[in-house]
Amino acid sequence: MYELTIALDAKSKKPLYEQIYDHIKGEMLKGRMRPGERLPSTRVLSRYLQVSRSTVNLAYEQLLAEGYLESIPCKGYYVSNLELFEEVQEQDDGSLSKPEESRESILYDFALNGIDEDGFPVNQWRKISKKILDWEESSLFQLGDSAGEWGVRDAITQYIYRSRGVLCSPNQIIIGAGNDYLLMLLHVILKHNTVVAMENPTYKSAYETFQCLGFSVKGISMDTMGMQVDELEQSEASVAYVMPSHQFPMGYVMPVKRRLQLLNWAAKSENRYIIEDDYDSEFRYKGKPIPALQGLDRKDKVIYLGTFSKSIAPAIRFSYMVLPKSLKEKWDDVKKAFSVTISKVDQRIMQEFIENGTYERHLNRMRNRYRTKRDLMLSCMKKWQFPYVITGEDAGVHMVLHLPGAGKEQEIVERAGKHKILVYGLSNYYIRKSQQNQETVLLIGYATLREADIPAAMKMLGEVIENKL
Amino acid sequence: MYELTIALDAKSKKPLYEQIYDHIKGEMLKGRMRPGERLPSTRVLSRYLQVSRSTVNLAYEQLLAEGYLESIPCKGYYVSNLELFEEVQEQDDGSLSKPEESRESILYDFALNGIDEDGFPVNQWRKISKKILDWEESSLFQLGDSAGEWGVRDAITQYIYRSRGVLCSPNQIIIGAGNDYLLMLLHVILKHNTVVAMENPTYKSAYETFQCLGFSVKGISMDTMGMQVDELEQSEASVAYVMPSHQFPMGYVMPVKRRLQLLNWAAKSENRYIIEDDYDSEFRYKGKPIPALQGLDRKDKVIYLGTFSKSIAPAIRFSYMVLPKSLKEKWDDVKKAFSVTISKVDQRIMQEFIENGTYERHLNRMRNRYRTKRDLMLSCMKKWQFPYVITGEDAGVHMVLHLPGAGKEQEIVERAGKHKILVYGLSNYYIRKSQQNQETVLLIGYATLREADIPAAMKMLGEVIENKL
Repeated sequence: MYELTIALDAKSKKPLYEQIYDHIKGEMLKGRMRPGERLPSTRVLSRYLQVSRSTVNLAYEQLLAEGYLESIPCKGYYVSNLELFEEVQEQDDGSLSKPEESRESILYDFALNGIDEDGFPVNQWRKISKKILDWEESSLFQLGDSAGEWGVRDAITQYIYRSRGVLCSPNQIIIGAGNDYLLMLLHVILKHNTVVAMENPTYKSAYETFQCLGFSVKGISMDTMGMQVDELEQSEASVAYVMPSHQFPMGYVMPVKRRLQLLNWAAKSENRYIIEDDYDSEFRYKGKPIPALQGLDRKDKVIYLGTFSKSIAPAIRFSYMVLPKSLKEKWDDVKKAFSVTISKVDQRIMQEFIENGTYERHLNRMRNRYRTKRDLMLSCMKKWQFPYVITGEDAGVHMVLHLPGAGKEQEIVERAGKHKILVYGLSNYYIRKSQQNQETVLLIGYATLREADIPAAMKMLGEVIENKL
Repeated sequence: MYELTIALDAKSKKPLYEQIYDHIKGEMLKGRMRPGERLPSTRVLSRYLQVSRSTVNLAYEQLLAEGYLESIPCKGYYVSNLELFEEVQEQDDGSLSKPEESRESILYDFALNGIDEDGFPVNQWRKISKKILDWEESSLFQLGDSAGEWGVRDAITQYIYRSRGVLCSPNQIIIGAGNDYLLMLLHVILKHNTVVAMENPTYKSAYETFQCLGFSVKGISMDTMGMQVDELEQSEASVAYVMPSHQFPMGYVMPVKRRLQLLNWAAKSENRYIIEDDYDSEFRYKGKPIPALQGLDRKDKVIYLGTFSKSIAPAIRFSYMVLPKSLKEKWDDVKKAFSVTISKVDQRIMQEFIENGTYERHLNRMRNRYRTKRDLMLSCMKKWQFPYVITGEDAGVHMVLHLPGAGKEQEIVERAGKHKILVYGLSNYYIRKSQQNQETVLLIGYATLREADIPAAMKMLGEVIENKL
């Protein structure tokens, strides 16, 4: 018989029976008590531990009820043979420990996503957060509308009309914790087996989300105006995913003519829609931002996607989707199956952030920061002694560097990697590899690079391209 | 020609050209400038407004670039005929205004979801939130792991092992903003065309989510031990969704025998899994909580779902899912397509809330609050002069009231409604209406009812049942 030496703590808040229960269960889980093993009788154990017999009884009853013990009449209590406790030790393999950060130290990362961290308006965010938390409103902790609270949807409606020319009512807006969540909802709303057309090359993250959700995806060729509508027309796609303000990765701005062609394409069938991903439209350095495609749409065809992840911080999980009225009705049919994915506190913070003007001031500041980095990057390139062409530099936070006559794209990327510089080859952003670019094209972002590092980073990048480092 | 009387503000931060641009675009959107209408020449307008001609030029160029204007050589600028601006007035229908709260004043709501609002630990939550916000960590605003940060997943791992006997590593945990979001991810992980078996009656919200996501759902009969495994075996289902700790709505606790039968069913095929929704296991009023089914699973078959929405507040959008190792590998294949849906700030708050013991103290307090209400409700019933049977009262925040010999269920529910009392008929929770309960059974919850209201509410409910009110 197993000696049950249990260190009981009479002063603990945990009742004695529970301490006994925990101890016995723990011994089983650790493999120190084995199936078939007999336990001391309640009489013996209660005397041994100097507790009342009913205390031990309670602990045993609980273990019995849960199936850890078996009671054999006139014989006593035995550890059950449920194969419960095997392999518990095995659990304690590497999977229990925190994975190591595997990323080596990188010197310069020309990252295409990410933000300028120093630009995050940390103090304003804190101030507003604390103010919201101090509100004496218990409704802040009640579940609200699946689409988000009216207040923040109204603030977004005003903001996207003002800044992007998007025409909608707050009723058409759904907020969600990230674009991928909103695409999930869209998958539900559009029903299944939808074929989505994407520009090629495109934003790979959206491509992966579509694929994972079970959409079929067709890559459609682009010219400098964007997605080619005649090829789209030939495809079976009923939904076209485009980024008219600043195509990722090419940086093209879709002119009005192509926009109208796209809208005409969509108008030809009831089930056709356009998803307009307006992911970085806030950052434009020449002229005024081109208004959203949604604002041109008179036929109820555009699903508009916007996000605060690019403009405030990726960790602020806050995106929004403007549905055309026909899809808004379908959303009403399914909305009760889904709850909002952003807490009310965060909704109120964002509402305040937009309404009191902090957001627009923040955007202006960021636009200046990014413009400075962009200009610096462009001027550093002028020192390069080899031929290059820059496109897509007037908006967003990256530019496209064409390198006629340079070595192979992949070789340059790898060479850069050896010198701890991360640059990104255009070929990675194609859906159909057969259509992939023949020339050497690098994508270089400046959001996360520090301004002070740009001259050295660009000098090294030039040397890497020339293979002189 | 239209008179462009624009009130320019030279002191505004907005450049003059932008003020002109905004004004003209606004007039178009309001329908005051119509397609084909000619604009004043830049010369005329600049003189009229007393600004430089290049200022007007800039404004016109922008409107041209965006397609609002057309320029006809030697003739001038015209409002485009893009059918842009029709129906804009129509936008301003009822859909622009906030919907009215339609809910009439309710006297007593025996709600089955919701929480005791007064129990929300608002001060601790605020205190922890502010502390987290004051951390000088810029990483708080960077995007993190798709599954959630290690810290909070580790805290959850410890907590569910301690309180629920769930055995897992933090690597197996995915956090998300609500169960429905996690079920969406599960739909992606399990791939498509999965048939899900649900107990009948069941939790309708999960049923609707499964349906909307495109799962096929089979309702399986229950006995008092829970889902009938032989019927499950006959179905084509590969996933069984169960609530072993406290079945909703019946309140049954699944005994170990049935749990093992379920696990055996799952072990028979590689693609079979059990979803254990442990939605209100924190609230148990007799004995110790029965450990989770997941803790019994040696074959890597249980997907465990837990939530803080029931135990803290519905507006805290925080759920978690423990994947078996085989599905964890599938998740690793798709995770890059999905970003976490909970902000890092909220993740840190929850981690702190669990680790510093606030959460468990909160649970103890809530358990006492709910126990008091439950006991009061049970004692009030003793005054009733008609036959009734109560089941499922030992856990959760609702009980099942069987009324043999009373009138029809639907009639009682409607009668209660006329007296502004909300009670819920069991028949609403069946998936297959043909299997629906024949007897009269009401579900009565006590989470949201105020303690002081319970005596009067129960008296009225008794009178409604007897049709004496």
